Amino acid sequence: MSHSHQIRVRYAECDRMGFVHHSVYALYFEEARTEILRKKGITYKDLEDDGIIMPVRSMKFDFKKAGRYDDLLTIEVEIIGTPEIRCNFAYKTINQHGEILNIGETELFFVRKEDLKPIKLPEKYKSYLMN
Amino acid sequence: MSHSHQIRVRYAECDRMGFVHHSVYALYFEEARTEILRKKGITYKDLEDDGIIMPVRSMKFDFKKAGRYDDLLTIEVEIIGTPEIRCNFAYKTINQHGEILNIGETELFFVRKEDLKPIKLPEKYKSYLMN
Amino acid sequence: MSHSHQIRVRYAECDRMGFVHHSVYALYFEEARTEILRKKGITYKDLEDDGIIMPVRSMKFDFKKAGRYDDLLTIEVEIIGTPEIRCNFAYKTINQHGEILNIGETELFFVRKEDLKPIKLPEKYKSYLMN
Amino acid sequence: MSHSHQIRVRYAECDRMGFVHHSVYALYFEEARTEILRKKGITYKDLEDDGIIMPVRSMKFDFKKAGRYDDLLTIEVEIIGTPEIRCNFAYKTINQHGEILNIGETELFFVRKEDLKPIKLPEKYKSYLMN
Repeated sequence: MSHSHQIRVRYAECDRMGFVHHSVYALYFEEARTEILRKKGITYKDLEDDGIIMPVRSMKFDFKKAGRYDDLLTIEVEIIGTPEIRCNFAYKTINQHGEILNIGETELFFVRKEDLKPIKLPEKYKSYLMN
Repeated sequence: MSHSHQIRVRYAECDRMGFVHHSVYALYFEEARTEILRKKGITYKDLEDDGIIMPVRSMKFDFKKAGRYDDLLTIEVEIIGTPEIRCNFAYKTINQHGEILNIGETELFFVRKEDLKPIKLPEKYKSYLMN
Repeated sequence: MSHSHQIRVRYAECDRMGFVHHSVYALYFEEARTEILRKKGITYKDLEDDGIIMPVRSMKFDFKKAGRYDDLLTIEVEIIGTPEIRCNFAYKTINQHGEILNIGETELFFVRKEDLKPIKLPEKYKSYLMN
Repeated sequence: MSHSHQIRVRYAECDRMGFVHHSVYALYFEEARTEILRKKGITYKDLEDDGIIMPVRSMKFDFKKAGRYDDLLTIEVEIIGTPEIRCNFAYKTINQHGEILNIGETELFFVRKEDLKPIKLPEKYKSYLMN
């Protein structure tokens, strides 16, 4: 099931072409996945406070159309598959005219903060992510 | 043929995990491809002043190991294939201990600034990129 | 009269101390002043489309307490004096616990985009800013 | 005594006016003060590894002229006064044409990482900073 999160493009996020710089979507997607976790009842901050961090293992973005300053973007984000040792998110960015600007995927994994060892997502969190 | 460019990790580029934030490599790779163009005899600024811009069509990064504050990174960058209507770059980030932190690919295309229409790279530039 | 705007701290905006990096408040303040203009009935984008840009002439921030990841910040922003050839904004950042994190001031001026000459703010815009 | 550090302006650091975004100078100044510490024989990373962090207490920047994409900037940085419980740096940004773009000041203070209490700079570090 996909969730939506709205982001207004900041001035500094646009480059001299007038486009949202491609690096910025990594920030938008991170904000969006944080917000869907919050809707699911946990926060990424809770996970970190519990000793679990989630580094990004890979990301893949396809850009179809440029975002622009002051655009009101909708990021649709979805968890793909079942989070075990990793968690995959898929994203779609849509502007205020209903145009798809880009799609993306990120693969995160779960790591114990104290020794940076990969771990399986504890059961108590899994139920949150799966709902 | 691959070229190398060195970048020192800035404090603000690291997140609360103490790692270089994954979005930052898009900036490092952009800086690296700019510098290899400069070594080849043209600057990306020349291209823009000549009415050609190069938006990113896609990017794909695989992260193996985290970069850290004050690391002195070497970005190896290479043009893949012959630039015609698009230009593909491959990247490898290596830290001061010789460890490969990540690899990446970006696909850029050539666009006429005045009407944002895709164009073929003019011949006069192609020779620079191919050397 | 002061206006309020809420911003959730992004992960990438925090540094390895776990604090919102001091540079980031320049982005927050820019977002906040954009949003108060919107509430006053104009957008900064309108101004730019009308050929007026507003570079920052000076900024001065005093930090009292650090912001942290996932904080829900309230930026209070106010226009100081009457915008003529420049426009002064004052800011206060308050966290979800009611603590003042910092205060800031920025001085912007009005510039004609076409020749980068400083200009007085046209009357039609002044009434918006003054309300 | 002032030290110089060179920085090439990145594409993503320029906004839609084509100017280096004002927030970016906070990053440039941080890089510059890091590099002068390195020249003086310590690294900011050493300090952190030794349990001392240096948050920014205040900053004040005056912008005279805009930086632009691909500019090769020289940041001149100087420690003002004697670092005791705080450390003041003054900066000047000069472009490749010898034009002064801006000046700035930042006030940092020393904090024990473990309990976030302000401390005096240990003597062993002071001699480095004063040379």
